[in-house]
Order: sequence, then structure tokens, then C-alpha cells
Amino acid sequence: MIAERIVAVQSSLAGLAIDALLVSAGSDLPYLTGYRAMPLERITALVVPAVGDPVLFVPELEAPRVETTVEVHGWGETDDPIGRIAARLPADGTIAVGDQMWAMFLIAFQERLPRARFVDAAPVLAPLRIIKDDDEMEALRKAARAADTVADQLGDVRFSGRTERDLAREIGERLIAEGHDSVSFAIVASGPNGASPHHEPGGRVIGDGDAVVADFGGRVRGYGSDTTRMYVVGSPPNGFADAYAVLEAAQDAAVRAVAPGATAESIDAAARRVIAEAGYGDFFIHRTGHGIGLDAHEPPYIVEGNTEPVAPGMTFSIEPGIYVPGQWGMRIEDIVVVTGSGVDRLNRSSRKVRVVE
Amino acid sequence: MIAERIVAVQSSLAGLAIDALLVSAGSDLPYLTGYRAMPLERITALVVPAVGDPVLFVPELEAPRVETTVEVHGWGETDDPIGRIAARLPADGTIAVGDQMWAMFLIAFQERLPRARFVDAAPVLAPLRIIKDDDEMEALRKAARAADTVADQLGDVRFSGRTERDLAREIGERLIAEGHDSVSFAIVASGPNGASPHHEPGGRVIGDGDAVVADFGGRVRGYGSDTTRMYVVGSPPNGFADAYAVLEAAQDAAVRAVAPGATAESIDAAARRVIAEAGYGDFFIHRTGHGIGLDAHEPPYIVEGNTEPVAPGMTFSIEPGIYVPGQWGMRIEDIVVVTGSGVDRLNRSSRKVRVVE
Repeated sequence: MIAERIVAVQSSLAGLAIDALLVSAGSDLPYLTGYRAMPLERITALVVPAVGDPVLFVPELEAPRVETTVEVHGWGETDDPIGRIAARLPADGTIAVGDQMWAMFLIAFQERLPRARFVDAAPVLAPLRIIKDDDEMEALRKAARAADTVADQLGDVRFSGRTERDLAREIGERLIAEGHDSVSFAIVASGPNGASPHHEPGGRVIGDGDAVVADFGGRVRGYGSDTTRMYVVGSPPNGFADAYAVLEAAQDAAVRAVAPGATAESIDAAARRVIAEAGYGDFFIHRTGHGIGLDAHEPPYIVEGNTEPVAPGMTFSIEPGIYVPGQWGMRIEDIVVVTGSGVDRLNRSSRKVRVVE
Repeated sequence: MIAERIVAVQSSLAGLAIDALLVSAGSDLPYLTGYRAMPLERITALVVPAVGDPVLFVPELEAPRVETTVEVHGWGETDDPIGRIAARLPADGTIAVGDQMWAMFLIAFQERLPRARFVDAAPVLAPLRIIKDDDEMEALRKAARAADTVADQLGDVRFSGRTERDLAREIGERLIAEGHDSVSFAIVASGPNGASPHHEPGGRVIGDGDAVVADFGGRVRGYGSDTTRMYVVGSPPNGFADAYAVLEAAQDAAVRAVAPGATAESIDAAARRVIAEAGYGDFFIHRTGHGIGLDAHEPPYIVEGNTEPVAPGMTFSIEPGIYVPGQWGMRIEDIVVVTGSGVDRLNRSSRKVRVVE
């Protein structure tokens, strides 16, 4: 698997006239080596030359936990790792740099190799990573099923009288209990906080009549889950039920717009049209979705202006929302996969509002 | 506070003949704005010109949760944020870039501003961030006290028969219960796994006679704790007790070497000398410590070759270790602060090995 991916990268490098790929901590690294490094001040870097064998440089003290089929070179605490890595790079060539490398490292390489040209590695890696293979799909499906179970369980959990933070903590515990290896995030946004799409769960005590956005995900073998469901304590606030019917229809329209060859922006437009026609257009303040895999957000982005056609094996979220500042917010989110003939939802828990105590 | 830091940055920019500072997600951002952004594909960036007012660019959907005294500009989902930010940067000037900005953004700015010169911002920011003020010290002390409480509690917890992963989860819960806002990491490395300093807690079941390294930390108001203590189930393994006496002496020698004006490498040498003289030199495979603050690892690095003198207000770890591959590992870690006359340990739980069941 790793070997096949390296071959694909080298073929892409050759096609784009790039001499080497340079990747540091971030999701490109586990994709190409099986090893996930922490982003830290001690550099971990993979060099893939257009021709020849890749080499992974790791801090010596991390070496015992590196499991990979790629050749590993450890560097010691008093070494010059930038110099050692730069020695494997083409001094006069073009070097594609992984998206998430820290600027301090890139600037150090640029100073060390002043004649080299550094370009974004996305054109090399994104086309590979965007299509999930069977192994990746299995991890994504397992993660989605575990998240669905948590979404259902939350229907029987007490919300009232608890802080957002406390409920978020419980969601994290449940994600692990249902089979995630780690928790990526758990947004609990209650009442007016729901109008902030990326609200950080805080000390607000959830009360009667609150609509609550619960948006959460974790990782299974590195691959993410991400789903959003709505909960209401007792009776919904004013205007909520009408808007929710619109949102359900919009989310469904966007999912039905997914098919091989459909552009990303046409899927976004399908959701947006339903919401706008019902008069809520100004309250849908973000794109319809994002790809998911080793990164929580990755291509394809389901947004106006992205004319890229989707293709079988792509996985992304469909998550329109309606946000009324000072009152409430709502969002419905499923991960979908493009199939040979259409679309498959990975998240299958009920999309109805769950009434909780 | 924020205003004073911006003034200090601008004075430093002027002194270094740099025209602007450009900072993205990462710890420089909360230091200069009070706002911590997630590192994501939607760019968040602060521009501090050498003269004039700073501006913080954030994705519009994050704007509701941004609390800062700096001027905030939201950018929308179909905007060109790189273009908008670049318009505030000097097209022909020198721009200092924050350490942790993603390479994809730096490359985009370099392509947009081909005549600008991009340099590492560390010379601007590190000298400011390395000296903690009273507010920062209070958060660091509170975090250290909470971590110490957990270290003590673990002495009464059952280790035997549990996986490393399960114990790590419990440590995380205890860090939160004792007052941390979030968990940064919890290393539990048992038996031979202890010989890997950054071991990732896994499915190994802890058993009788195991030495267990527990190294953990979380955040209080953004500032980190980080302490390591040793636990042994029943009787220690062969050779452990003798080596531990050496390690205790080495850690103590390094702490006593801390004083205003002492070089970072002299503190490292103080620990290394004790370990080497006892014949364990080859088994101490990492630097003696790292600074701590908004980042879990930051300057000053307590390592051979770092001739920087430490000064009052600097906070860093003192954490020598001895690692015997295939057998066991051990480490003792305290955070210390340099005072006007010497040193103060922030971690004060017992450094003796705790015998557990």
C-alpha cells in the first residue's frame, strides 16, 4: 500500500516536472509512511525524490516508535537536521512542500537551498488522497457508525441543567467507548450559542426550550468521523420548527445532487437554493461541506467557485446550517461517499430533531 | 497587556529593520491577540506593521467567538483571503513569519508578493515570549499544582492488569478534574516500553514488576503543565533502584545549576555529568529540557550547544532520563522558573518512586 502510494507520487512528480517531495508532520506523512508525527520543534521529514528511494528523517528519541517500510534516518539532539535533510534535496531543483509543514522549517530550507524553487505539494498529493481506497473506506465507515451510535445515545441523555462543556466531555467519552481511537472535537452550542457555527463549548447551562447543536467526531486508524444532529430541551424556540423543515429539505437536496461528474459548487448550490427560496439565505453563512479522511477538513471543498467534478471514492460532509444571531442555530451533517452510480450516506442516524430533558 | 505586547513587537521590528509581522494559528496568536485559532485550511492571520495598527483576519464563521482588543476583519467563504491579507503587507519589504504558519499559506504569500523577503519571526517573538509575566506565571503555577495532585493520586491507583491506554485515559480525566482546561498529552510507558521516551500508550497490560513512566500535562488558560514521575508495580526490575538513585541526583544537580546567567548548555551538562560518571551516559538519549508556556515545547532548550544564558522569568523543564532498551526506562521531570537569585521548582510532588499495586 505504502509502496504503491510512493510510486504514484513519483509518477506525479515526473509529470509535473518536480524533482522532490518534502513532507513534514501533518496528514501527508501517515498517508505516505504509515507514521503520524506530532507537529513539534524537532523536525520529522520525508523526502521522496522523483527517482530513487524515499527517506524518513525522525528525531532519534522518536525512532523506537516509528513503524514504516520506508528507510528511516534518526537525527540526534546536537545534529543539524535541516542540513542533513537538505543534503537529500536538489539544490537547483523544484521541491514540492507538504501543506502543513511549519513556516520555520520551510524558511530554514529556503535559506539553506537558495537556488531551489519551493512549490505547494497539493497538486501532487491532493489528487491521490482525495480518492479513498477500500482500507480507508472501511475506517471511515467504522468511524461514522460509531458516531451515529453516539448521536442516538444522546437522545436519552439529560441536557437540562448541565454545562455545554460537561456535555462535550461526555460526548468525547462516548466516542471512545464506541470505538474511536481518539476524539477530534465535540461542539455543543446551546441556545443563542448555536448561532456560532464553531462555538467552543463553555460554561453556559443548558435550559428548557434550548435548541442544541451537537457536532462531533473522532478518529479510527487515523480517519475521521464528523456528524451534526440537533437536540431540543422540551419545546423548540420560536421559528425553529419551520426553519428545521427547510434545513432537512436542503440537506437532502444536496445529498441527492451528489453523483459522479457533479461539480462541488453544484452540490453547494443545491442546498443553498432550498434555504434561499424559503427566505433564510442570509442565515446560511458557510460552505456546504468539506472532504474528510486523514484530515478533518481536506479536499474536495463543497463551496461556490469550486468547479471540480466529484468522482467515485471521494468522501465529504454535507452540512448546511441556519443561524439566527441572538436566538438559535441549526445544522445537519452527514458524511457521504460518491459511488459509481451516485451517493451513499455513511451517517445513518435519524436526522429528526431529538427532544431531550 | 495585549497592547503592551504589540508595542514591544513593533519596537523589535523597528530594531531589526523588519517591516511587518505575519502570524497565523499557533501560540504566537493568543500571545498577541488573546485568541487561539485552530490550525485549519481557512486562514486566520494577524498582521502587525512596524508602524500602525495591527489587523486580525479571521474566517467570518469564526468571528462570533473571537474576543480581542485587536481590529478584526472577517473574510467570507468565497473571498480571496490571501489577497486581502497580502494587501496589508509591504510588497517590497521584509516580513517576519510566525513559526507555525502552514507552508501552504507561506508559499501562497510568497507567490503573491514575489519581491517581499520572508524571514523567521523567532528573533522578534522568542525574546518576548521567553520571559513570563505575573499573569503567565500564575497560570503555569496553577497548572503545575494540578499536575502534582494527579501525580500523587496515581500512587493510590491500581496499575496492574490495566492497559497503558486505560491508565492514560484516567490521567487525562484527573488532569481535567484538578483544574486543567484541556489535556495536552499523557504518556504511560510500562516495562520495556519505558525505554521509548515518547512512547504512545497502547494495549500493553501492566504487570507485576513493571516500572512505569507517567509523563503528562494539560493547559490552564493556555499555559502548560508537564511533569514525569515513576511508578513500580511491586518490586522494581533488575538494576532499576541503582539507576534511579543516579537519576535523582542528576535531576537535582541540573535544578541546582539553574541561576540567572547560567547557560542552557551548562544546565544540561550538570545532569549529563552525573549520569555519565555513574556509567549510564549512553542511556540518556535526549536533551535535559525545554521551555514551556503557550507551547508545550518552546525556548529555552536545555541542550548542548545552546549557549544562551537563562534569566529571571524563564520557565523550562528539567527532565533527565535513563533508557535501557528491552528492559525499562525512567525519567524525572519538573518545571522550574528562574528567579532573581536562583531557581524555584513549580512541581513539588515527591520525586521518589511510588510503589503501586
